[in-house]
Amino acid sequence: VRVVIIGAGFGGLNAARELKGADVEVTLIDRNNFHTFAPLLYQVATSGLNAADVAHPVRGVFWKQPNVTFRNASVTGVDWEEQVVEVDDGDPVAFDGLIVAAGAGTNFFGVPGAAEHSLPLYSLADALALRNHLLARVEWAHAHPDEADVALTWVIVGGGPTGVEMAGALAELVQHVLRKDFPELDLDRRARIVLVELADRLLTPFVPKLSANARRALEKRSVEVRLDQQVESVAEDAVTLAGGERIPAHTVVWAAGVKASPLAEHLGLPLGPGGRIVVEPTLGVAGHPNVYAIGDVAVIPGEDGRPLPGVAQVAMQSGRHAARQLTRTFGRAGRPEPFHYKNKGIMATIGRRAAVAQFPNGFTLRGTLGWWSWLGLHLVYLIGFRNRLSVMVNWTWNYFTWDRGPRLILWTDRRRGRK
Amino acid sequence: VRVVIIGAGFGGLNAARELKGADVEVTLIDRNNFHTFAPLLYQVATSGLNAADVAHPVRGVFWKQPNVTFRNASVTGVDWEEQVVEVDDGDPVAFDGLIVAAGAGTNFFGVPGAAEHSLPLYSLADALALRNHLLARVEWAHAHPDEADVALTWVIVGGGPTGVEMAGALAELVQHVLRKDFPELDLDRRARIVLVELADRLLTPFVPKLSANARRALEKRSVEVRLDQQVESVAEDAVTLAGGERIPAHTVVWAAGVKASPLAEHLGLPLGPGGRIVVEPTLGVAGHPNVYAIGDVAVIPGEDGRPLPGVAQVAMQSGRHAARQLTRTFGRAGRPEPFHYKNKGIMATIGRRAAVAQFPNGFTLRGTLGWWSWLGLHLVYLIGFRNRLSVMVNWTWNYFTWDRGPRLILWTDRRRGRK
Repeated sequence: VRVVIIGAGFGGLNAARELKGADVEVTLIDRNNFHTFAPLLYQVATSGLNAADVAHPVRGVFWKQPNVTFRNASVTGVDWEEQVVEVDDGDPVAFDGLIVAAGAGTNFFGVPGAAEHSLPLYSLADALALRNHLLARVEWAHAHPDEADVALTWVIVGGGPTGVEMAGALAELVQHVLRKDFPELDLDRRARIVLVELADRLLTPFVPKLSANARRALEKRSVEVRLDQQVESVAEDAVTLAGGERIPAHTVVWAAGVKASPLAEHLGLPLGPGGRIVVEPTLGVAGHPNVYAIGDVAVIPGEDGRPLPGVAQVAMQSGRHAARQLTRTFGRAGRPEPFHYKNKGIMATIGRRAAVAQFPNGFTLRGTLGWWSWLGLHLVYLIGFRNRLSVMVNWTWNYFTWDRGPRLILWTDRRRGRK
Repeated sequence: VRVVIIGAGFGGLNAARELKGADVEVTLIDRNNFHTFAPLLYQVATSGLNAADVAHPVRGVFWKQPNVTFRNASVTGVDWEEQVVEVDDGDPVAFDGLIVAAGAGTNFFGVPGAAEHSLPLYSLADALALRNHLLARVEWAHAHPDEADVALTWVIVGGGPTGVEMAGALAELVQHVLRKDFPELDLDRRARIVLVELADRLLTPFVPKLSANARRALEKRSVEVRLDQQVESVAEDAVTLAGGERIPAHTVVWAAGVKASPLAEHLGLPLGPGGRIVVEPTLGVAGHPNVYAIGDVAVIPGEDGRPLPGVAQVAMQSGRHAARQLTRTFGRAGRPEPFHYKNKGIMATIGRRAAVAQFPNGFTLRGTLGWWSWLGLHLVYLIGFRNRLSVMVNWTWNYFTWDRGPRLILWTDRRRGRK
């Protein structure tokens, strides 16, 4: 029996692992040859971690699981008649059961100029491109001190966890590293980090007191928090807000939201909000008894009927559930069962000794305690002991020295910084 | 008094450090914002180390040396009339004393197709491009198993230290990591690593018995060593040798030699073999009493009158010497003194517990002992305690597990693998 899993993110990877020892042949397909620990991408973008600290070669994950074959390719579509997945390189892959775990992509919400002039933070390539851009702009400011202000303004669009974490990490990079790297630039006075959020508070999935706590922690780090603000357009050298205010900036980070992977619309399956695939309570797709959709590419209904958030825990749990339902069905052990999400809580970090955490029973943590639990949790969930070790070394070093080793501008395509 | 240093390699970095506390203002210019520990680039190319393990941000090196300013730019020329260095971004930099430490670039010796179709290994960008290419070719072989042989053949041109170290590290990557990553590919039988050398032995700077030892160690690792062979041309999918033999291969690593940085020919200074700047015994340039050339960009005469080799030790020692002569001259302490190179020996590593080392007194080491001294020496010379720590963690991990964590295919320009 052949199971194909599209995507090696948290969902796809956990689905494949769940099938260890099962009497199925699994083919896992991803356009990258590595799994990305997406929650830490902002640390790669701000020179806190190496690329390899948050990425793990997929083939290495399955050295000891011989029923998994990996294909490094982009999926271009599914032929439902022939029951094969089509890829951009090599032969199509036949399946008896299919798990669609293609994840999400950046949602620019049609804001003019956003796709062309802002930098998303959803993939490892995004994070490295953002790091190159950030650092190259400061070097440019150093070479052109009279015009430096626009190069030293960073606008982050979106006050969810990604935007808040990016703003906090960037503020610490500027205050503790770049200030020493560029003593001539007077960054204390000239550097400007602006966080723009559409709602009336940051971190809307959290309770209001944690939103307020995050805002205070950011403002303490000199981040300008702009609530109730809509971005009207993005240009090469400025962001314009709905009220008409124009913020000159060479760098705009787009952390405003995600939509389903573009693959979803090429599959001919029923789509919901954000282009996500609609699934039944079992995570199966109506009319396709052997097809499941999980994680960010699916609209997964929660207990209260509202869709579950696009977080790693939902992807991991839904991936394992879908894998189990396929083995149940193939093994004729009965009909697929509905998915029950076990909420383990949510967290976001602002900076050193500043994080917020919220658990389903209403318990909350913030400040130093929140930060330590955030650290521990992320170390536990990082794939692979080697990554954990390297991240621990990096974090310990960063903690005591405030240094950031990986602040390298690496244009592997030999292209130099654009504005 | 203003000193400008062009290049932040081993030579330029050591010249700048030597000027710590001196009554001069130093401007150090490099196109990259980091110093590269070039002797370990082959380990980045073969997934043994992270980019950040062999690169150190230049600005961080000088946090505690306030008389150094760094400029991240490419030097385009020198205006000798005005005594300024011209750069591609920002204002020209005036100097009273100049140290040219621009290093070297790959020498393709005019071999047809070599510049277009082979991959050099001289910069960090080269090493990352080579890693991407190597790994992507194996993924391609996995998607096209019938045509895989040409994608699984790696030809390395040049049997000097770079070629030997690359061949050995690649052999270990294939035998211990890729073989497990791609069990379907039968790499034991199909993978082919060919090392082509023009001379009648490998590692010509070493005594013949170490050359023979290196050859045996490579052949034990299934590397085909082809001596007395000249490369006639390189194409997208093959290398042709002078005898007419054609080796089908998608990957050709060019480790055959270096020449001076292209900058050298734009300076109007006297040039010698390989486009290098000719210097006097003091390392000064004739007719320019305030200009020194050091390291790979210069032809530095040794005790026996023959030019010194292009190794890190020569660059470091000549950099420190040039810096001292400038301060002597500015301080009116007398005329510049001749440079005396202190040869500390040479080393090359083939793989785990296999390295060769040769000291000026004729003493040699090989095998396990050679390897341990190689390891220790490279850790000592790595810039920065953090890099040392991270490299040690990586090497220890690799040693015990044979794993290679950073084997990530990272196209930051979103370009996919060409053949």
